Amino acid sequence: MYLEQPQFVAVFFYFLIKHMSSNIATEGVYAIGIDLGGTGTKFGIVDNVGNVLFSGEISTKKHAQINTFIDELYDQLIILINNAGGIDKIKGIGVGAPNGNFYNGNIEYAPNLPWKGIIPLAELVANKFKLPVTLTNDANAAAIGEMMYGAAKGMKDFIMITLGTGVGSGIVANGQLIYGHDGFAGELGHTIVIPDGRMHAGTGKRGSLESYASATGVRLTAIELIEQSKEDSLLKSVDKNSLDSKVVYDAAIKGDKLALEIFEFTGKILGLALANAVMFSSPEAIILFGGLTKAGDLILKPTRKYMEENLIQVFQNKVKILVSHLKESDAAILGASALVWEQKN
Amino acid sequence: MYLEQPQFVAVFFYFLIKHMSSNIATEGVYAIGIDLGGTGTKFGIVDNVGNVLFSGEISTKKHAQINTFIDELYDQLIILINNAGGIDKIKGIGVGAPNGNFYNGNIEYAPNLPWKGIIPLAELVANKFKLPVTLTNDANAAAIGEMMYGAAKGMKDFIMITLGTGVGSGIVANGQLIYGHDGFAGELGHTIVIPDGRMHAGTGKRGSLESYASATGVRLTAIELIEQSKEDSLLKSVDKNSLDSKVVYDAAIKGDKLALEIFEFTGKILGLALANAVMFSSPEAIILFGGLTKAGDLILKPTRKYMEENLIQVFQNKVKILVSHLKESDAAILGASALVWEQKN
Repeated sequence: MYLEQPQFVAVFFYFLIKHMSSNIATEGVYAIGIDLGGTGTKFGIVDNVGNVLFSGEISTKKHAQINTFIDELYDQLIILINNAGGIDKIKGIGVGAPNGNFYNGNIEYAPNLPWKGIIPLAELVANKFKLPVTLTNDANAAAIGEMMYGAAKGMKDFIMITLGTGVGSGIVANGQLIYGHDGFAGELGHTIVIPDGRMHAGTGKRGSLESYASATGVRLTAIELIEQSKEDSLLKSVDKNSLDSKVVYDAAIKGDKLALEIFEFTGKILGLALANAVMFSSPEAIILFGGLTKAGDLILKPTRKYMEENLIQVFQNKVKILVSHLKESDAAILGASALVWEQKN
Repeated sequence: MYLEQPQFVAVFFYFLIKHMSSNIATEGVYAIGIDLGGTGTKFGIVDNVGNVLFSGEISTKKHAQINTFIDELYDQLIILINNAGGIDKIKGIGVGAPNGNFYNGNIEYAPNLPWKGIIPLAELVANKFKLPVTLTNDANAAAIGEMMYGAAKGMKDFIMITLGTGVGSGIVANGQLIYGHDGFAGELGHTIVIPDGRMHAGTGKRGSLESYASATGVRLTAIELIEQSKEDSLLKSVDKNSLDSKVVYDAAIKGDKLALEIFEFTGKILGLALANAVMFSSPEAIILFGGLTKAGDLILKPTRKYMEENLIQVFQNKVKILVSHLKESDAAILGASALVWEQKN
């Protein structure tokens, strides 16, 4: 019975490689990849060797209703589709979304999206575009993108962590993406790092990685540390609403002590979470992706240091922490588009 | 390239099923399974349908030197081997051991064993017995045993957690055991649950699951809570060295408040760790195994409660917590013995 089980990823690569090695142009030569995020949604038309030919973006958060979101997505994408030669050139659509379920195509209880409950996203998109749609978790899509075109090329065991509006993760083991029993594996952002720690407004849980290492998390850390600190800091003159990892970075490279402390604190918590992930699935590398990684060594150094400190000996000095080389959002768009080549029709 | 990668577990089951379905008695019809633990080492001679025909046990911890351990293991096992018809009847040996590395057959830096550093255990056993030896992590062996003969029969995504001298785990995803990049995946016991928490004497790290949910951990919790408590308790008259989960259980079923509090505290930490594991790999079930599970609902109820409390909505009320049905240690012996059928020679 074990040999008969569907080997999703193997089959997927089989179809992908088969497709990539074919030089005959068939109907549906492009795939659409959509990276649905808490703030914005990016999309691209991708050819079968991973070039993003056309791309665009709309706001996610301004749409209180999923239907108006789908409408705007269609209106914007149809322009790109026509640029690419019309809908007949498109084989299908792949979507990466927070809490996206690969098995049933639903987004389920995503704390960082405007739409609550269960959203049958794949069905809604399929009905609108009259194209086959495959959905997965946003970080899973990014992991597939990294494995095919990015920093994880050739790796069989790695963890992709997206540090954006939320914190997502995609776990690859034995060369396969881990979907878990129900399609929701890889919610590393919601694991509890500091019991009874900071409240997460979306989930109501305390002390999750996301409540510290997301964009919002870094902002809250900055606000807290500014309030507690009696020392001078460039950050004290910044409006609270403008505080983000970019502003903190600008202060930190000028040597601002408080700004450095914000990265140290964030890296301490991220490093602890990475250590726990390493002791769980023992990856060759952890690929980080997203806004926070732009701070470079300011965040990577403390993250590495605290990861190593929390690892037991057998894991020490083995695991690479890498930053995605792919253009911002391309990993998820490419990964989502790659899902299309395994679609049966 | 992805299709060419070795599908270890699939191949293993192929050989296993092939072997099991064969009615022709061939040379080497039995397998030896060894469960090497921090306190004791259990072993059994197992037939090809999972019956433990002969079994025995020796002390691990009394052997400061690995060589005297191997000698005693041989002396005891050779008696069983002769009972089973002699060494020619044995196909090979499978060993489950803490920090056992499936890829190279070494035990590496096991904090709960008397032997430090890297121990080439598979090689030492192979040289002594003149039989092929396969080694894996003890909890991985138990997970294989549960998947084949126990509570996880037919499951493709589950986590096995052994609550013994140490706390080990074996993670199965997509029907495959997760070994990780270096063979060390599944060290859930060493993940940090309480940052800056209780010191683990073996690893020097603070706040790991093992420092609370192992046999030693429960004992330390009992000692701490007894010292802090001003109320009467049956446990206050127990000698510190005799305190273990059995003694605490006996007091708890008599309604002893402090004893109940020890299980509540342990379950709170175990439940948090399970929640984090669930959000990582989204298993269908978690199978618990070992001494602590004998406390039944006294430990399971708080563990379930705190696991659910820490899960985000999408994971709630989905994941079973099951206790192994297999006879104490049989899971690991059976799982270790199952490794033998995939040996090539």
